Amino acid sequence: MALRAALRAKSGLSGFLPQLSPCSSHGRVCVSPILIAQRRNSSTKIKVDFDQNTGVAVMHMQSPPVNSLSLDFLTELCIGVEKLEMDKGCRGLIITSNQPKVFSAGLDILEMYGKSPERCGEFWKAVQEMWLKIYSSNMVTIAAINGSSPAGGCLLAITCDYRIMADNPRFTIGLNETQLGIVAPFWFKDTMVNTVGHRNTEMALELGLLYSPSEALKIGLVDQLVPEDQVLTTAMQTMTKWLAIPEHARQITKSMMRKPTVDKLTSNREADVQNFVSFITKDSIQKSLCMYLEMLKRKKA
Amino acid sequence: MALRAALRAKSGLSGFLPQLSPCSSHGRVCVSPILIAQRRNSSTKIKVDFDQNTGVAVMHMQSPPVNSLSLDFLTELCIGVEKLEMDKGCRGLIITSNQPKVFSAGLDILEMYGKSPERCGEFWKAVQEMWLKIYSSNMVTIAAINGSSPAGGCLLAITCDYRIMADNPRFTIGLNETQLGIVAPFWFKDTMVNTVGHRNTEMALELGLLYSPSEALKIGLVDQLVPEDQVLTTAMQTMTKWLAIPEHARQITKSMMRKPTVDKLTSNREADVQNFVSFITKDSIQKSLCMYLEMLKRKKA
Amino acid sequence: MALRAALRAKSGLSGFLPQLSPCSSHGRVCVSPILIAQRRNSSTKIKVDFDQNTGVAVMHMQSPPVNSLSLDFLTELCIGVEKLEMDKGCRGLIITSNQPKVFSAGLDILEMYGKSPERCGEFWKAVQEMWLKIYSSNMVTIAAINGSSPAGGCLLAITCDYRIMADNPRFTIGLNETQLGIVAPFWFKDTMVNTVGHRNTEMALELGLLYSPSEALKIGLVDQLVPEDQVLTTAMQTMTKWLAIPEHARQITKSMMRKPTVDKLTSNREADVQNFVSFITKDSIQKSLCMYLEMLKRKKA
Repeated sequence: MALRAALRAKSGLSGFLPQLSPCSSHGRVCVSPILIAQRRNSSTKIKVDFDQNTGVAVMHMQSPPVNSLSLDFLTELCIGVEKLEMDKGCRGLIITSNQPKVFSAGLDILEMYGKSPERCGEFWKAVQEMWLKIYSSNMVTIAAINGSSPAGGCLLAITCDYRIMADNPRFTIGLNETQLGIVAPFWFKDTMVNTVGHRNTEMALELGLLYSPSEALKIGLVDQLVPEDQVLTTAMQTMTKWLAIPEHARQITKSMMRKPTVDKLTSNREADVQNFVSFITKDSIQKSLCMYLEMLKRKKA
Repeated sequence: MALRAALRAKSGLSGFLPQLSPCSSHGRVCVSPILIAQRRNSSTKIKVDFDQNTGVAVMHMQSPPVNSLSLDFLTELCIGVEKLEMDKGCRGLIITSNQPKVFSAGLDILEMYGKSPERCGEFWKAVQEMWLKIYSSNMVTIAAINGSSPAGGCLLAITCDYRIMADNPRFTIGLNETQLGIVAPFWFKDTMVNTVGHRNTEMALELGLLYSPSEALKIGLVDQLVPEDQVLTTAMQTMTKWLAIPEHARQITKSMMRKPTVDKLTSNREADVQNFVSFITKDSIQKSLCMYLEMLKRKKA
Repeated sequence: MALRAALRAKSGLSGFLPQLSPCSSHGRVCVSPILIAQRRNSSTKIKVDFDQNTGVAVMHMQSPPVNSLSLDFLTELCIGVEKLEMDKGCRGLIITSNQPKVFSAGLDILEMYGKSPERCGEFWKAVQEMWLKIYSSNMVTIAAINGSSPAGGCLLAITCDYRIMADNPRFTIGLNETQLGIVAPFWFKDTMVNTVGHRNTEMALELGLLYSPSEALKIGLVDQLVPEDQVLTTAMQTMTKWLAIPEHARQITKSMMRKPTVDKLTSNREADVQNFVSFITKDSIQKSLCMYLEMLKRKKA
């Protein structure tokens, strides 16, 4: 019922159809340091270009059609970030999209619908892991937002140190979970408060607002707007400036700013998983997700 | 002495004369869930129009001359909010004034002058109760601020989810307690910080600033300005948008944003009452209030 | 190495050469309440003009060339503030500079280079003491910023209640410690967050940003810009307005806003000293400071 209301509203998400192909039956992947050893397939959803001369890596998200954050995708992302983090030569990470019009459409709804509690929990741990790894990264992290970035896509962006967005009024960005009848958890909220302050976050999250690039710039949700074809080059130039800062001092300062927020999730991680699982597996929520997916199917057909 | 200074300053309050009629000798009213059973009189200070079709209630404050927040007024307000809260059909609450030029002049000074500590404590509990009920309401709450809104009137406004103010430069809004020689307690301050941030709150509260509508908009103390005769209709339209949001998700999100602030008062409620009573019953403060009231009498005469 | 990068960057500090004369061999001065009894020399680094009629004191910092915050300077400053604080007739304090083009260049690097851990600890206690005394002062404190104000100079400014800066685009202000390879401690950060919010602080501290006056005004790092020759007179006029506020209520309000931040340092003071000492006495940091000082010598020659 809640979702129907969301669909009537211009959620700006209608263009982002999660892939409705059956979920690939891969084995359970534990997102943790040992996760690397468990992976056998080569990366396909994310292409990493690492330039050893500059010390800058660019992650191109390339999971059609809309870079949905599935368990597979998140696992690859976390492995990729971890590899770069451990490489002393890599000092900066730019995250961008190879898909047209979209940075990332956010969490893959198919990972939340009709899945066992165990599987839902695993998925959620991967979402947590992505945030923990990037929000506390020693690398300089820049989001080159070359398309729309709702919900989990927005989370990915605000988890970085700096955000450059394409100045295309058709793109939107925001934590619009409420519009879908679901709730952004406390650490999405904390990251948002750290970025745009308490009052903007209250409005943004309660109404599930999606902002145009210029609105996003105005409240500080993104830091800079540039023409669409200059997003990546501007990110490169900005990275050069950040990397000119004495590194150790910058890292300690970043940790000082972000550690309290990181610690809050770290020390409540299991409870947060339980909370997500018990919410998402509710009959009412599953029913809503079902209706939402059927609507998307009809739209696609 | 402090108050004299405040009176010399343009506090913007000079027009708001508290009623100097003797305090009505009603029995002690405990503001609590059982309060409803204790009330016998029909509401007179607040008129509630509840439209079952839209699910929206409008509370018209109509306590001449300036909707001062007396114990009687607060008791009625709390009962009214509680009734609507328990009515499943009521999803939105708009608070506005039927008095000309003023939304609410704030706490009734007569409730703080020459009263017993017990009575002062009771009054303060009612102020707390109003804030607790509205700040944590499951309903969407919108303040339709069609006049000046100093001190407790401003608190009432910032306790709501959204604020629409009449764009009349003669109206002002702000937590100007300091100008009167009294101090906004920590939960007034917390609500203000949640609305306009730490630095704006520091300036606003230390200087007891009253803002014009355009200044208030600029710092985010109100969300929208409209011509005076469109305040209520705009509130209605805004309410429709808020009610289109999936309700359960919106309520959980609101609670996540506000619960830490609510819990802080809930777990310090008795100490906060003691603190208020011991401050307000001080000889120096009582003397100041006396002088202030005499000044108001002279002005009125 | 970090410092070399900082020097390549336009840190805006190149004009602020710490005095390279040998450190005066005064006895260890404990910055504490008993400190006054221990001082014998008359003030020379700070001139205090106290007008008993207005209740306003003006502190002119006059330690050539750039009002570096040395242990001697800080000791004098703390004694001066404490004297005024205890004088019931003094209600307002304006801090300004008698040196051309600079408010204060911040912490004296010579106090951190080649000194014993004990001496470094003593110095750091004096920095803490300055902040504690001014941030929690009962007086109204206004920074009349008539020149550049990097690092510790910026800290001194944001520790006051209000900041008026000369509108000269050649002046800069900011906590640029990171540019020098050192790190602003948590209470510098807390003061900055209280002034400009979390996100602005994150950017400012990670990048060691120095803002022009107009940029500083935009993010709220300063409150007002005026022509250079009107900084002090504007501070005087502003002070008159602040002193018109009922004093006791203003002081309680200020304490309510600032006490949590003050308590955080007070209860971690010794650990903060240890942290500073162990960081600054590291070989790598000492080496960086050495190279920085030699660069300054060459520049001066």
